[in-house]
Amino acid sequence: MWNTDLGDVDAVIERALGEDLAAGDVTSAATVPPGLKVDAKLVAKAPMVVCGLFVAGRVFSRLDRGVRFTATAAEGNWVQVGEQLATLEGNARALLAGERTALNLLQRLSGIATLTRAYADAAGDKTRISDTRKTTPGLRRLQRYAVRCGGGRNHRNDLGSGVLIKENHIRCAGGVKAAVRAARRRAPHSLRIECEVTDFAELDEALDAGAEVIMLDNMDDHRVQAAVARVDGRAIVEVSGGITLSRVATLAAAGVDVISVGALTHSAPAVDISMLFGAPPS
Amino acid sequence: MWNTDLGDVDAVIERALGEDLAAGDVTSAATVPPGLKVDAKLVAKAPMVVCGLFVAGRVFSRLDRGVRFTATAAEGNWVQVGEQLATLEGNARALLAGERTALNLLQRLSGIATLTRAYADAAGDKTRISDTRKTTPGLRRLQRYAVRCGGGRNHRNDLGSGVLIKENHIRCAGGVKAAVRAARRRAPHSLRIECEVTDFAELDEALDAGAEVIMLDNMDDHRVQAAVARVDGRAIVEVSGGITLSRVATLAAAGVDVISVGALTHSAPAVDISMLFGAPPS
Amino acid sequence: MWNTDLGDVDAVIERALGEDLAAGDVTSAATVPPGLKVDAKLVAKAPMVVCGLFVAGRVFSRLDRGVRFTATAAEGNWVQVGEQLATLEGNARALLAGERTALNLLQRLSGIATLTRAYADAAGDKTRISDTRKTTPGLRRLQRYAVRCGGGRNHRNDLGSGVLIKENHIRCAGGVKAAVRAARRRAPHSLRIECEVTDFAELDEALDAGAEVIMLDNMDDHRVQAAVARVDGRAIVEVSGGITLSRVATLAAAGVDVISVGALTHSAPAVDISMLFGAPPS
Amino acid sequence: MWNTDLGDVDAVIERALGEDLAAGDVTSAATVPPGLKVDAKLVAKAPMVVCGLFVAGRVFSRLDRGVRFTATAAEGNWVQVGEQLATLEGNARALLAGERTALNLLQRLSGIATLTRAYADAAGDKTRISDTRKTTPGLRRLQRYAVRCGGGRNHRNDLGSGVLIKENHIRCAGGVKAAVRAARRRAPHSLRIECEVTDFAELDEALDAGAEVIMLDNMDDHRVQAAVARVDGRAIVEVSGGITLSRVATLAAAGVDVISVGALTHSAPAVDISMLFGAPPS
Amino acid sequence: MWNTDLGDVDAVIERALGEDLAAGDVTSAATVPPGLKVDAKLVAKAPMVVCGLFVAGRVFSRLDRGVRFTATAAEGNWVQVGEQLATLEGNARALLAGERTALNLLQRLSGIATLTRAYADAAGDKTRISDTRKTTPGLRRLQRYAVRCGGGRNHRNDLGSGVLIKENHIRCAGGVKAAVRAARRRAPHSLRIECEVTDFAELDEALDAGAEVIMLDNMDDHRVQAAVARVDGRAIVEVSGGITLSRVATLAAAGVDVISVGALTHSAPAVDISMLFGAPPS
Amino acid sequence: MWNTDLGDVDAVIERALGEDLAAGDVTSAATVPPGLKVDAKLVAKAPMVVCGLFVAGRVFSRLDRGVRFTATAAEGNWVQVGEQLATLEGNARALLAGERTALNLLQRLSGIATLTRAYADAAGDKTRISDTRKTTPGLRRLQRYAVRCGGGRNHRNDLGSGVLIKENHIRCAGGVKAAVRAARRRAPHSLRIECEVTDFAELDEALDAGAEVIMLDNMDDHRVQAAVARVDGRAIVEVSGGITLSRVATLAAAGVDVISVGALTHSAPAVDISMLFGAPPS
Repeated sequence: MWNTDLGDVDAVIERALGEDLAAGDVTSAATVPPGLKVDAKLVAKAPMVVCGLFVAGRVFSRLDRGVRFTATAAEGNWVQVGEQLATLEGNARALLAGERTALNLLQRLSGIATLTRAYADAAGDKTRISDTRKTTPGLRRLQRYAVRCGGGRNHRNDLGSGVLIKENHIRCAGGVKAAVRAARRRAPHSLRIECEVTDFAELDEALDAGAEVIMLDNMDDHRVQAAVARVDGRAIVEVSGGITLSRVATLAAAGVDVISVGALTHSAPAVDISMLFGAPPS
Repeated sequence: MWNTDLGDVDAVIERALGEDLAAGDVTSAATVPPGLKVDAKLVAKAPMVVCGLFVAGRVFSRLDRGVRFTATAAEGNWVQVGEQLATLEGNARALLAGERTALNLLQRLSGIATLTRAYADAAGDKTRISDTRKTTPGLRRLQRYAVRCGGGRNHRNDLGSGVLIKENHIRCAGGVKAAVRAARRRAPHSLRIECEVTDFAELDEALDAGAEVIMLDNMDDHRVQAAVARVDGRAIVEVSGGITLSRVATLAAAGVDVISVGALTHSAPAVDISMLFGAPPS
Repeated sequence: MWNTDLGDVDAVIERALGEDLAAGDVTSAATVPPGLKVDAKLVAKAPMVVCGLFVAGRVFSRLDRGVRFTATAAEGNWVQVGEQLATLEGNARALLAGERTALNLLQRLSGIATLTRAYADAAGDKTRISDTRKTTPGLRRLQRYAVRCGGGRNHRNDLGSGVLIKENHIRCAGGVKAAVRAARRRAPHSLRIECEVTDFAELDEALDAGAEVIMLDNMDDHRVQAAVARVDGRAIVEVSGGITLSRVATLAAAGVDVISVGALTHSAPAVDISMLFGAPPS
Repeated sequence: MWNTDLGDVDAVIERALGEDLAAGDVTSAATVPPGLKVDAKLVAKAPMVVCGLFVAGRVFSRLDRGVRFTATAAEGNWVQVGEQLATLEGNARALLAGERTALNLLQRLSGIATLTRAYADAAGDKTRISDTRKTTPGLRRLQRYAVRCGGGRNHRNDLGSGVLIKENHIRCAGGVKAAVRAARRRAPHSLRIECEVTDFAELDEALDAGAEVIMLDNMDDHRVQAAVARVDGRAIVEVSGGITLSRVATLAAAGVDVISVGALTHSAPAVDISMLFGAPPS
Repeated sequence: MWNTDLGDVDAVIERALGEDLAAGDVTSAATVPPGLKVDAKLVAKAPMVVCGLFVAGRVFSRLDRGVRFTATAAEGNWVQVGEQLATLEGNARALLAGERTALNLLQRLSGIATLTRAYADAAGDKTRISDTRKTTPGLRRLQRYAVRCGGGRNHRNDLGSGVLIKENHIRCAGGVKAAVRAARRRAPHSLRIECEVTDFAELDEALDAGAEVIMLDNMDDHRVQAAVARVDGRAIVEVSGGITLSRVATLAAAGVDVISVGALTHSAPAVDISMLFGAPPS
Repeated sequence: MWNTDLGDVDAVIERALGEDLAAGDVTSAATVPPGLKVDAKLVAKAPMVVCGLFVAGRVFSRLDRGVRFTATAAEGNWVQVGEQLATLEGNARALLAGERTALNLLQRLSGIATLTRAYADAAGDKTRISDTRKTTPGLRRLQRYAVRCGGGRNHRNDLGSGVLIKENHIRCAGGVKAAVRAARRRAPHSLRIECEVTDFAELDEALDAGAEVIMLDNMDDHRVQAAVARVDGRAIVEVSGGITLSRVATLAAAGVDVISVGALTHSAPAVDISMLFGAPPS
């Protein structure tokens, strides 16, 4: 099944289940009666922006259609420690077989959404917090969804859905001007031309050549301010590299349009969530 | 190709390349001459235990067999900021197309190895630092390899390669004793029986029933010490839950055999690595 | 769909259907009216332990959701010649298209269960009959299920879910003692250490080094008896190699814990089962 | 890679390796030095028609391109107990990782070829011994190859590459004549029309309607002889059902054109083959 | 799901959706409210034989099970410009996400059915219009279905489901006679032997050697007439190469049995179909 | 292998070979000696822009690494009837097994390139001929490559790599202005905002709201001229719908920037190419 928001989420789930269940679940097979039904719930063990409940639920339904999974928290909302995220009801072996896979996805996606929310809150309404292509191999679509859940925006999805001229391209093309012009001439007309610049000479050259987005690479706050003034509305301004949460408000105040943050997807810690079984089954 | 150390690493790479290149690389196609050859190198931007160079190299060779990738640092070794990890030589478009995918893998694996090394150094020779099943869906085999590179050890790979009786199993089986005995009777004889305990009554019950590994769940250092004494060599002792780097030396000194740390794979930050093109091509 | 008992059974079925239907079913397309509904039944043509009815039913439901398949015999039970195993009701073309694939699976799995039952009955309650890794490529999970259906037990599923030191490992490691010690030191702590021995010197060496399971390789009944006495409860004793049904009772009486039998999965003959259409459709 | 003789053999191998190595090879990783090179050989432990050496070799090369595999027996030839089938040279861990998978394939294919040879020898030059669609799911192409290696011939590969009207079709079509005529009118003109008959009335009806191949279903030798005489060259005559090796010569002498034998692929026992390591590595 | 008429149609659809939605649908995500429900219809913009409505409907149900798709035209029937083919009801984003994929399939299949109908009408009842193996890679099964929908017949599906000896085989075999005889001796007995001939000497040779189908290659109408007379019922006669619609009636009148037309699948233009949204949603 | 120009071309080829060779090549197996080596060549049977030679060559190398394929015409160049496109040398059975698959791809891609060239020549240097998403399911990347080979340009690859607001979006969003503004606010900043308009009121509204590309939908030449004048350089102008080759020069002269033509990929006829074997092998 293709999900337009999440991509081929079933393939991700099958792969994950395959990693964990290729040889069955020997512990549950030995200790849990085959027909035992139980209630369970997912509970937040840390404050978080919850993200991925649909995905978690689908893990269990891929294993056993009889499991009933009900999200009790709203995707993209803050929840507090101890808050219940979902209830489950079904075969005990199925719940145990899916637990780790479901949590592995849910904890990571919620971790990304939680971190993104902090950046987005700091950035305010006029500046976008954007992800990058520094995503975990195999999970790009899900991680981009988590960024949106946290209030961030998506940058280009892949190398075909955006033109971003970086230092290495500039060297190969023979300069900023040559690179930007070549891109305007040859890239699909559905794409804006973005060019990374490291100083003001490059910035001027890129604007003159027709760049529509300027990426300021690894500049400090003062230089960013000056660059925004220099661009003066002629292009969208994106900053990237060396972004920390503490800089975001300053950058936003400087009038930057987009702040892209690799850490959202490459270094967000997972948040803690548990699956608890209900009253002892009788 | 199946790699006994890394699993089906080509499938991981194909998936990652598919995410990034499904629509081609429009920037390079527009700005980089098709036949241009360049030199490049991978450089550490932070101190790290490097891990995944083979994987990074294979990314490029899947894209273009003509790329020559040479690792110049030794897998599993510490490298310093600015140190060169590998050299590349080949078609510029291929290097640019593979750059992000290669770095996404290399930075994550090195991040895990680096974090693991810190834990392993603190644990010393007599105590194992072990991973858990809290791995990133789709990357389990690679992450387990990174843990080994960092000096850690692997716990059971999946639900079929180890018996680990946890709280939910105990409730379903009707107590620790019943659960451990059922596991001894029914699980494959190639597997040890491990049982999680939360107090000393459970510990005694598990040992009496024949558990070969005792997992102490979320106990503080004092209780761990007491538990180790109580077990007194009759079983392997593993601690899990709430482990921080600062506790490791104490736990090791207490005589714990295995410390399992979910954070190694679910929350290790990526480390920074860059691909730099060499002298401007002529 | 991942089934914790059977693995990725849909993938097995899709593959099998693909082999048989890649070019359609030209005979049915030419001779059977498209909308014709029929009743059918699966009937045992030989005495057998029936195994795989769920799998057979799923073959038809993957082809056509409208087919109603009802198992009328109990999985794992003995059935006699002429006994009905299941009833089917649905589109005639769908039943004909799935017949061979369903029977190919059902007849093989029942064949394994039937052979296993004979061994398990001979072994009695105290000795396990175990499968090996000598399974048919692509069908390991299903065949292991059939062994369980027949009253047998599963050995390690794969090379990662058990440590079994064999002659070639011993040679590479430099002796039994070195091999067993290396395994204890390096293998995941969830796994017991099993060592194959060919004589009593090796047996003693393996026990001294801490082997938890001893595999007696190709020993005759007398030597097995002597070996069991020598081990004297210090390790689990498994025999393997040259096992025939006639030896099983003797080996069990000798106190062997596990008898592993490759023939269960590599040489069990298929048992005969037919699909019969009901009263001529009107 | 698609092999026109063997089909997608690499997919079969990857699947098999995946089953055995999804969690790595913990025994070899613990006991065998990583760089150790060894010599090994495959040796027949029973007389057999050897089949599948290319497949076995490819198992090792998929795992490690450095393994040198040299077939020393000729595919399709008889070999005696103790005869060497192939030599191997390469990394010890790779040989151990691939051993079981390679043997699982080689022993089964050689088992089929060996059984087929017995039938083919009994049938002589004028009568074909043919396989059926009763093949192991996932291995059809390889098993059909093994039948050819043993001197047998292939029946239709799948439901789209031959018209075979059986009892159930006849009932659905409303009689032999209606079924045969419908098939002549509607099936692809590249296919002969074969019709199963259970008595002489059906036989006559099938011939009159234009059947080009007559399948005699479960007839005893006398009735087969009479049927061949009745057909008198107007159609190819195939016998099927209840075929045992002891009947083959009689059936051939009766002038039957094709004897199809399901047991070739559904019940051939695997033949025994070992991988032996060479002189202790130094 | 395997469909005996259409093959693995879900795999085709997943692949197509993957091509279009790998990075989501950014336009709908930005402009269409997430929960908006709409009515829509598919409308013919050209006269056509409609084919593939089931496939189109399944595209939407793979994206979103909530979409209700109802075919309102009959598969294989002529429809006029402006005629409604199907109605849809469901989430607006899902309809927009599936639109192009559904139409890409439906327009191509209907194009093939429409072209085939013209040939089949010209050929009359006694001559088959047949497809060839000149199908679009990945779509063979669907295209063959479209040919049947248009009143054509299927030739062999693949290289394993028919014997067709062509010029290159003849050269390799050492002549027509040698080739035909080898085929009779070695090919599966379920297949007729077809031989391509370019002149009457070859025709005679092929018939003498026992060819059951004669393919007249690139002969003009007069030579075809003479060839049919020469064959005189001893074999099925197929013409191929250089077939245009205007020649079909003449060839049929000449008594040709089969006219195979590559253009049906390699050059049929797509027919125009639109998806129109209903009254503005409120 | 991922090819940045062609996508996952090996997957396309494997799929195509699977369609044709799932049951082997019975004709060649019966008539062509197994070890026979031959020379062959691919020859144009019609004038064409050749495209896909690399793909054709790879078909053979996937089947048999021993085949030597040498392109003798230049990709993207015009060739005349009778001109040689490539030479082949290798095993006769491999050449015959790959012939149809290779030609099926090569003839279609060359057909697209040839048709595109006609449009591109008519459009001149200042106007782009662009493809659309009306590509054949499974072949999008290859067809887009063929369009580039023919001198055309690529439009957005998929629904995630371009914002194109069409009539249905406008209705859902509540008007042109609302739709364009929503897109500017929410779509990735790497993408230009394109809006389809059907009259000048919509055109003005779209421009005012900030559309960067205007698509003129189904307008005649006069209205296109007027629209271009009205836009007056404030946006890129694309025309689509009802484009025929005869209109292209006029539209280009009117100053249109992009002419997108669905027929390039949905209705280009295949061009004729043959594989001829060389001098009779001896």
